[in-house]
Amino acid sequence: MDHSTSLLRLIFLALGAALVLLVLHSTFRLDTSSSTTTSSLFDDDDAAAVSSSCTRFAPWGCSSRRIKKPKLAPAASHETDVPRHPLDPLTVAEINRARELLRAHPPFASSPSSLFVHSLDLDEPDKPVVQSWRKGADDPLPPRRAVAVVRFRGDAFVLAIDLAGGTVVPLPVPASGYPTMTMDEQASLCTAPFGDPEFNATVRRRGVRLSDVACLPISPGWYGPAEENRRLIKAQCFSAEGTANFYMRPIEGLTVLIDMDTREVLHISDRGAGIPIPSAANTDYRYRKSADAAEEGQDEAEFQKVRAPSMEPAATAGAGVELVDGHTVRWGGWELHIKADARAGMVVSRAGVQDPATGARREVLYKGMASELFVPYMDPSEAWYFKTYMDAGEYGFGLQAMPLVPLNDCPRHARYIDGVFVAADGRPYVRQNMICVFERYTGDVAWRHSESPITGMDIRESRPKVTLVARMVASVANYDYIMDWEFQMDGLIRIKVGLSGILMVKGTAYSHLNQARENEDMHGTLLSENVIGVIHDHYVTFRLDMDVDGADNSFVRVEMARQETAPGASPRKSYLKATRRVAQTERDAQVRLKLYDPAEFHVVNPAKKTRVGNPVGYKVVPAGTAASLLDPEDPPQKRGAFTNNQIWVTPYNKSEEWAGGLFVYQSRGEDTLATWSERDRPIENKDLVLWYTLGFHHIPCQEDFPIMPTVSSSFDLKPVNFFESNPILKQRPTNEDDLPICAATKA
Amino acid sequence: MDHSTSLLRLIFLALGAALVLLVLHSTFRLDTSSSTTTSSLFDDDDAAAVSSSCTRFAPWGCSSRRIKKPKLAPAASHETDVPRHPLDPLTVAEINRARELLRAHPPFASSPSSLFVHSLDLDEPDKPVVQSWRKGADDPLPPRRAVAVVRFRGDAFVLAIDLAGGTVVPLPVPASGYPTMTMDEQASLCTAPFGDPEFNATVRRRGVRLSDVACLPISPGWYGPAEENRRLIKAQCFSAEGTANFYMRPIEGLTVLIDMDTREVLHISDRGAGIPIPSAANTDYRYRKSADAAEEGQDEAEFQKVRAPSMEPAATAGAGVELVDGHTVRWGGWELHIKADARAGMVVSRAGVQDPATGARREVLYKGMASELFVPYMDPSEAWYFKTYMDAGEYGFGLQAMPLVPLNDCPRHARYIDGVFVAADGRPYVRQNMICVFERYTGDVAWRHSESPITGMDIRESRPKVTLVARMVASVANYDYIMDWEFQMDGLIRIKVGLSGILMVKGTAYSHLNQARENEDMHGTLLSENVIGVIHDHYVTFRLDMDVDGADNSFVRVEMARQETAPGASPRKSYLKATRRVAQTERDAQVRLKLYDPAEFHVVNPAKKTRVGNPVGYKVVPAGTAASLLDPEDPPQKRGAFTNNQIWVTPYNKSEEWAGGLFVYQSRGEDTLATWSERDRPIENKDLVLWYTLGFHHIPCQEDFPIMPTVSSSFDLKPVNFFESNPILKQRPTNEDDLPICAATKA
Repeated sequence: MDHSTSLLRLIFLALGAALVLLVLHSTFRLDTSSSTTTSSLFDDDDAAAVSSSCTRFAPWGCSSRRIKKPKLAPAASHETDVPRHPLDPLTVAEINRARELLRAHPPFASSPSSLFVHSLDLDEPDKPVVQSWRKGADDPLPPRRAVAVVRFRGDAFVLAIDLAGGTVVPLPVPASGYPTMTMDEQASLCTAPFGDPEFNATVRRRGVRLSDVACLPISPGWYGPAEENRRLIKAQCFSAEGTANFYMRPIEGLTVLIDMDTREVLHISDRGAGIPIPSAANTDYRYRKSADAAEEGQDEAEFQKVRAPSMEPAATAGAGVELVDGHTVRWGGWELHIKADARAGMVVSRAGVQDPATGARREVLYKGMASELFVPYMDPSEAWYFKTYMDAGEYGFGLQAMPLVPLNDCPRHARYIDGVFVAADGRPYVRQNMICVFERYTGDVAWRHSESPITGMDIRESRPKVTLVARMVASVANYDYIMDWEFQMDGLIRIKVGLSGILMVKGTAYSHLNQARENEDMHGTLLSENVIGVIHDHYVTFRLDMDVDGADNSFVRVEMARQETAPGASPRKSYLKATRRVAQTERDAQVRLKLYDPAEFHVVNPAKKTRVGNPVGYKVVPAGTAASLLDPEDPPQKRGAFTNNQIWVTPYNKSEEWAGGLFVYQSRGEDTLATWSERDRPIENKDLVLWYTLGFHHIPCQEDFPIMPTVSSSFDLKPVNFFESNPILKQRPTNEDDLPICAATKA
Repeated sequence: MDHSTSLLRLIFLALGAALVLLVLHSTFRLDTSSSTTTSSLFDDDDAAAVSSSCTRFAPWGCSSRRIKKPKLAPAASHETDVPRHPLDPLTVAEINRARELLRAHPPFASSPSSLFVHSLDLDEPDKPVVQSWRKGADDPLPPRRAVAVVRFRGDAFVLAIDLAGGTVVPLPVPASGYPTMTMDEQASLCTAPFGDPEFNATVRRRGVRLSDVACLPISPGWYGPAEENRRLIKAQCFSAEGTANFYMRPIEGLTVLIDMDTREVLHISDRGAGIPIPSAANTDYRYRKSADAAEEGQDEAEFQKVRAPSMEPAATAGAGVELVDGHTVRWGGWELHIKADARAGMVVSRAGVQDPATGARREVLYKGMASELFVPYMDPSEAWYFKTYMDAGEYGFGLQAMPLVPLNDCPRHARYIDGVFVAADGRPYVRQNMICVFERYTGDVAWRHSESPITGMDIRESRPKVTLVARMVASVANYDYIMDWEFQMDGLIRIKVGLSGILMVKGTAYSHLNQARENEDMHGTLLSENVIGVIHDHYVTFRLDMDVDGADNSFVRVEMARQETAPGASPRKSYLKATRRVAQTERDAQVRLKLYDPAEFHVVNPAKKTRVGNPVGYKVVPAGTAASLLDPEDPPQKRGAFTNNQIWVTPYNKSEEWAGGLFVYQSRGEDTLATWSERDRPIENKDLVLWYTLGFHHIPCQEDFPIMPTVSSSFDLKPVNFFESNPILKQRPTNEDDLPICAATKA
């Protein structure tokens, strides 16, 4: 539908709606005065129009004339891209080709406009094919294939598409659950409630103008068989009046159950009578709220109280970082393939490091990515019990990644990689600047040693640490997940998750803690008048297909325990003893971390030993983390059972990619990583996959209001006897000549 | 003794020693061929001479003519320094004044050259005095006082010195143990073995030339009453032939027990017969081994294989960091006092942050420092059982800090602070560049939020994170401890310990793992031929005198546990419930961290509440750490009992400063933090001290050979309802105009 036609229809609908509202106003004394703030999502006039006029396919949005649509700035053209590496994501041309093939495939061909594409991704070639491929004029790419998950007239299909051959072959469909939501339906469902008069009436009863309402689509989880056989979503709504941060203004307790396919409102639950909408005051976080020059002058004064940073890592742009063929990164001895992924966010593949002793490139990680998230909220009431998000499988972690903000999300010299995704109608669209890659020097030390006066030797040796960071940020409605993969020259990989963005809060009648009853369980912290930050957890489960110097690896637990000495054998009564245990089957590798029962966790290549006989390996090194305490039989914990342990190891299985299962949405949780691991398959000297879950317990505090300072946690993959000795021994120290000459532009 | 006289004596002794050795050579066929390598510590000729000619007071060293003495580069003159803050360390003038007073004090006056000063530090004024002091022309400093620990004719004394009044008053002396070693004796004791012919013979029997021997002084710990009443040290020795990294060439199993006061060798134990000295090959880590131009050419080629970093945080020098009156740092709303300390290394005091909402300065941390370390090795054999270092109380963590290496230890724009310490004869000396302070931007994000297409709002807000780092590095013989205190603009303090430097290794007859017996406990990892890296732990216990918005605080455990819902009450079976428990006495605050029994740990001010009623506070946030598994009755664990828990809270007590006790050396461990905490004193709404222990289990790997890449761990002090809302909400984003213009000096 082109813009002039839709504009005309909009005008007519607006007039119609205005008439309707006029009648309602005189009947129910509805306040329909137009909002003059530019932060309103809708004019009253087009409230009813909105739900039917929303642009359903990219670029989305149901915006009034006054909100600027997200600018899809002139992007690097991807129209003519061709794949250059076997793991390169589908190109614009390939997506269009797949779309053609799908729309021509029975039964979809009978009604192509009823076909909705939920995912369309590269079907990666088998590992041996990828590993033996070499770039060169004579080495063609392996045949390109795609896998699609679509819905057609109420049924889901999983299809293997041969792009060159033109064939479409059905694959097995999971027994329960539904595919990842399309971005289109996420955007359009948030206006579905407006089609229901009871909803509109309820909103007005709660004192909010329809034109100020913003709704979010919330996955309902699974709580029993009664909810099966229908794709459901729950919408919860907020007032966007007076602030962009509508999240801080919930219409508490109002939950709208919607059939995702018919858009029919099935049920409205309002448990929030008497709970006010929290104030908009002090909730906005934008630097510039308006284009108004006078307002802008005032903004500046307010903002200068906090000193803006005036420095950055200086470098010739991207110096030292090679970005080749769009997705291959070379830096500091590392080479890896990196790409955006609609569900995982960012995928790092074929990560290998050059051995300084031999010059040879050695494999470390075949493929690493976030496989699933689990974000349960800790309030069992009607309006909150179901909030147990699984952001990758339900919403698409990559679909939620917005373009990075230069100079602020990433330093000046960062290089950017775009993502190419697929809308529900099968058409490709570009998400610009989805990943950034940059080299950095933080001022930390790579290694050092000085001799103390004890030995009288004049030795002062120090080497600065320079690293490579690859970053993507997923903004899943309120929360922002900053996902970093950091590579060090000593072979260490640090995977870090940073949490920022905005809390999901609960409205309350309380404006002060002293109004609460003694020992009342508020399920969170009173952050501001009428606002409770509800307690929740975040779990991010990473799938790490380690190939340490080759595919066949073993998992070794190096257990540390107290060893008592024999009486009289030593003045020492005890010492710490390390015992290596090679995991033979999956149950040997289900790990819960215990501070007083510690171990190291190695992935080794039993066939490759160092000169003195240690098996080469990498170890996973946890740092701070959290574990789920939910009842294992609690439905969300069954769906999130991949968080029952912090570490799991499974034998490589291409179909075991998504820790919550392929179809996570409304799934029962019968096909998760926990299920697979219970098969107790052999994992000694086999192609292994390591799973690590990074967790956070979050009890909100006032500092998180109205937007939270970044909190992060990480874990490392660290070489252990992988190298014969310190791989960065020969790093040169920095001297004055190495450093750029910089002049500040302002004092 | 001036240099010309000592040179003459040296020549005469050398001639005499040469004659002696000549006789011995013909009698015992001793190999006395001179070493031509420049890394030898001693010529054969002066082996015997060394032990008596060592310069006993700063600058130390027992160096042959061919080793350059540590250059005490032209330091900023501290001769005329005056104290400008009540917490400023003793100045050169004050130290000289204290020395006068001590030497004039009976009984020391009877023989001042027999007086050895083990520590001489500022005796900080009482907290209320410090807190009420304001800088200004009319506000004089509180009276300056010092506390000294000295030894005189075999007895230890603790003395309070009033510098202005000129009085010296004895204080109680601990019942067991000895004071921190002086740097002088650490340096000179390592040559004591050479005075013993049996030692020299043993060394030669092991195939090492005396001129190649370097010995280290190793604290013996306490293993029974038989070892009391005499100050003992154990020396262990290495071959420095062919490398600066003598640590990799232990003369394994040779332990020399020495009386520290008489320098008499009491016992020599050699359990290393048959164990070769590991090779020097591939152990050196220096960038430039010699001044020889030809050698240097070769060095360069070797080193360029690894790309040198070409970037750094650019800034006008120290932009944004104010360093006032030598020790006060102001940055990003923070103000703190920072100083070097002979025992603790670095002390951060009076850390407070400006509240952006009110402009008022608010207290957070009155005093923070590393209070003790505990580094037990896990080998109970004769030559290893006693290695259970307590680096602060035995060696002086600050005494071991060498000048930082500019551009490598700290970035170009860092500011430096010197330390002024006291030699054993009571004279002051300057340790230049002991602490560096720098602002940094690592490319991380302070906070951010983007709206996803779900809401159709065009919002992309991101703010870069800029932080302040204060750093000191202690090089305790082989190990380097990189101690960072990092301050963020959102009020968070991150305390980080980085481990680098060189392992303590054990010689072995094995050159390959297959030579070891099945299940043989090698107590570590075979790193190279004949070299085992012995397993060990590191614990650093921090003393954190928190004064959150004032001195009277409470410690609150916010315990998180599963709460089951009542049957039928909710589709959810469970949720995470937080329960606040205010610690009433010390036993309530003895914390062992448990992943499956988690809690938050708050220090709150019960009298200060936010607008909505939450008590203001800071929480301690652990990250990765380790816990000691040694038997609590094992003598080293009794001495290190402060590591029995990760967190402790005690009521403020000025004398409870050193977690292992005041006299740690050869102590029995009867006066540690664990002892104090068992008094179970009230800690609710009182001036509290929080103790946090950061731990590492270290199973060495080949990458640690011959020098280890930095491994770090940290913990945070984070505001929790300290601010009414996000304190950095009004931070301005960075735009192109903010950034400096940099040109690389080389490609």
